[in-house]
Amino acid sequence: MNGLLLFAHGARDPRWADPFQAVAARVRERTPAAMVRLAFLEFMAPDIATAGHEMAAAGCTAVDVVPIFLGAGGHVRKDLPALLDTLRTQHPGVRFTLHPAVGESALVIDAMAEAAARSLG
Amino acid sequence: MNGLLLFAHGARDPRWADPFQAVAARVRERTPAAMVRLAFLEFMAPDIATAGHEMAAAGCTAVDVVPIFLGAGGHVRKDLPALLDTLRTQHPGVRFTLHPAVGESALVIDAMAEAAARSLG
Repeated sequence: MNGLLLFAHGARDPRWADPFQAVAARVRERTPAAMVRLAFLEFMAPDIATAGHEMAAAGCTAVDVVPIFLGAGGHVRKDLPALLDTLRTQHPGVRFTLHPAVGESALVIDAMAEAAARSLG
Repeated sequence: MNGLLLFAHGARDPRWADPFQAVAARVRERTPAAMVRLAFLEFMAPDIATAGHEMAAAGCTAVDVVPIFLGAGGHVRKDLPALLDTLRTQHPGVRFTLHPAVGESALVIDAMAEAAARSLG
């Protein structure tokens, strides 16, 4: 089974997770055959280790990891690869593939620009 | 003149700003009559005070402020309103209107879900 692991930052304010939960729900609609999990770097659960273990235990042999971040700062360039290396060591039978942050895709950049432009009075 | 102030977090890694600069460029294409500025909470320049002063000095009488954030955590719910209150006090002739974070719009949520779903192997 293929897995899609959405990685978000997390915040103390529980309302902060709403858009990420909405993204995960939309992704599940688009990829019904895949196991889709949302994990957080900090403040919110599950963390990526817990989600990765769960996906491996469920039989995922390939997990595509997608940072739900706007840009690639230290969390995406350093923290996430280190977390994935640990998961790869613990689950050698699972291929974890790291993808670019969604905020770097033209699709998302155009949507953010459209949403911002619509705010102009 | 109307202004559109895009507010982003900022990061130590200069490459992190690329998607935000791309959003600002797209917004300028869509709203050629407006003054569009990108400002950062931390690590990157200009800060929102500098950008707000510049827009007021340029003759903006209404500035729509759009957080280029995925969710509304403490920065959007607390830090940004406080920064805007200071700008309103310093520039009583300018109407600063705070809008929701772009990441909360269905347009952006759908685009992030599509970008994530495309990453599935």
